[in-house]
Amino acid sequence: MNVLLVFAHPEPRSLNGALKDFALQRLRAQGHQVEVSDLYAMGWKAVLDGADFPARDAHAPLDTVGDSLQAYQSGTLTADVLAEHAKLRRADVLILQFPLWWFSLPAILKGWIDRVWACGFAYGVGEHSATHWGDRYGEGTFRGKRAMLMVTAGGWESHYAARGVNGPIDDILFPIQHGMLYYPGFAVLSPFVVYHTSRLDAARFAQTTATLGARLDALASTPPIPFRPQNGGDYTIPALALREDLAAGRSGFGVHVEG
Amino acid sequence: MNVLLVFAHPEPRSLNGALKDFALQRLRAQGHQVEVSDLYAMGWKAVLDGADFPARDAHAPLDTVGDSLQAYQSGTLTADVLAEHAKLRRADVLILQFPLWWFSLPAILKGWIDRVWACGFAYGVGEHSATHWGDRYGEGTFRGKRAMLMVTAGGWESHYAARGVNGPIDDILFPIQHGMLYYPGFAVLSPFVVYHTSRLDAARFAQTTATLGARLDALASTPPIPFRPQNGGDYTIPALALREDLAAGRSGFGVHVEG
Repeated sequence: MNVLLVFAHPEPRSLNGALKDFALQRLRAQGHQVEVSDLYAMGWKAVLDGADFPARDAHAPLDTVGDSLQAYQSGTLTADVLAEHAKLRRADVLILQFPLWWFSLPAILKGWIDRVWACGFAYGVGEHSATHWGDRYGEGTFRGKRAMLMVTAGGWESHYAARGVNGPIDDILFPIQHGMLYYPGFAVLSPFVVYHTSRLDAARFAQTTATLGARLDALASTPPIPFRPQNGGDYTIPALALREDLAAGRSGFGVHVEG
Repeated sequence: MNVLLVFAHPEPRSLNGALKDFALQRLRAQGHQVEVSDLYAMGWKAVLDGADFPARDAHAPLDTVGDSLQAYQSGTLTADVLAEHAKLRRADVLILQFPLWWFSLPAILKGWIDRVWACGFAYGVGEHSATHWGDRYGEGTFRGKRAMLMVTAGGWESHYAARGVNGPIDDILFPIQHGMLYYPGFAVLSPFVVYHTSRLDAARFAQTTATLGARLDALASTPPIPFRPQNGGDYTIPALALREDLAAGRSGFGVHVEG
C-alpha cells in the first residue's frame, strides 16, 4: 500500500521522533511505499489567509470558503497545498502523528488541515437534495482510504478513561476522527495512543513499539470505527438528526457510532 | 472590568469582523476597558518551536515542557508571548472569538494557546500530593477570571444538537472550554454561537447582535458552566476518576458538569 505519514513534532530526538522512525522502518519492511510530510522540517505554513489563494481579487473581502473553492477548481492553490493533495491522492492510508497539546492538534497540524482540506476537495463536495446532504461522513474524496491517529499524551491513561477528569480519549479525538477524517470520506481506525510520556523507560518503549508494530502490520485488515454514514438512512435530511429509533434516548458523540 | 478579546479571523470585512466591532462598541459603552489581540493583524506566530525559548541550549533536544518552564521562570519567553501574559493578568474577562474550522480552533488561535499557555503559567502549577493534583481544573493562574467563547459555524443549529450529525456543540467545545480554559482556572460562561452563517441576512444579524449584546451586558453576573473542581473531593487522586457515586453509571464529557 501507499502510506502517507504526517508528522507534527518539532524535535526529531523526541519520543515522537523515535516512534516515527520505528513506524517508517516497520512499514517499509512490510513492503509499503511510505511518504512523510514532516511539517516542522518542511516549515509548513500553518495559518490560512489570503495568500493561499493567489488568483483571488485582492480588493474583495477574503471569502475563506468561496475563494478556496475557486482556487481548487481553477488549479490555483499554492504549490505546498497542491503537493499535499497529490500525496493524499496516492495514499491508501493516512497516518497523522502528533503530541496531544491542549486536548487537540498542535497548531501546525491544525493548519495543515485548515489549508489542505480545500473546498471542493474535502468539503463542499456532492449534491444537496431531499435524500442526500453532500458527499460527507462516509462519502467524499477520500472514500476507500483509511486513516489512523498516532498520539502521545502526557497525562495518565486513567485521566482519559470513561470517567477520567480530562474526558474520554475517544471523545477528545472525535472532532478529529469524525469531523476531520470521516467527514471527507476516510475509514478511521482506532487511534494508537501512548500515555504518561514523561515516564517512558526502555521497557515501556519496547512494549509501546511492539504494540505499534502490530497495529501497523494490521493497517489493511483492522475494522474501522463504525461511524454512521450520513446519507444511508440513519439521519433525517436536512436536519441531520439521528433517527429517533437509533440509540434511542441517548445523545453525545457515541450515538454516531453503530452498535 | 478589563476585557481581553482575542480575535482569530483573517478578514475584518466579515461577519466575525462585524461582530467584533459590535462587541467592542458595546463593551466600551458599558464602561469596560477593552484590549484586543487581533491575531491575524498582529501576524501572530502560530507554531511553537525552539525559537520560543531563545535562552535554551540550542544543541540539546527541544523539551517543549521543560524549556517552556525554564523560559517562563527566568523571564526569557519571547516578547510577543510576554505581552499576552501581561494582557491576561490585567483582564477580568477573556473572550476568544473565532470561526469554527473543522470543529476546532483556527490554527492561529490554537497556536496562541500552544505558545501563551506556558508551563508554570497555565499548566505545571501547584503541588502534587495525595489530596491535590496540581492547581488546575478550577484552580490555577486564572482563578477569579471569566472566559467566554464567541463562535460562528457554517452548519445549521440542528446539525450541532444533542443528536445532530456533527455532535453536540457543548461536546465539540469541551476540549476548549474545559481543557484550555477551565484547566488553568477560568470560570467559563456558556458560549455565544452563531449558526448557518452563509444565510445571515440583515434581520438575523440584528437579532444576533441583540442576543450578543445581552450576553456582553451580563458578563459579570452570568453563572459559569458548573464544571467540577478537580481537587474538591469529586475525583480520586491520582487516578483522577470521578467518584462512583457522582453521575453514577454515566460517562462522557457531561459527567464533569455538576447537576
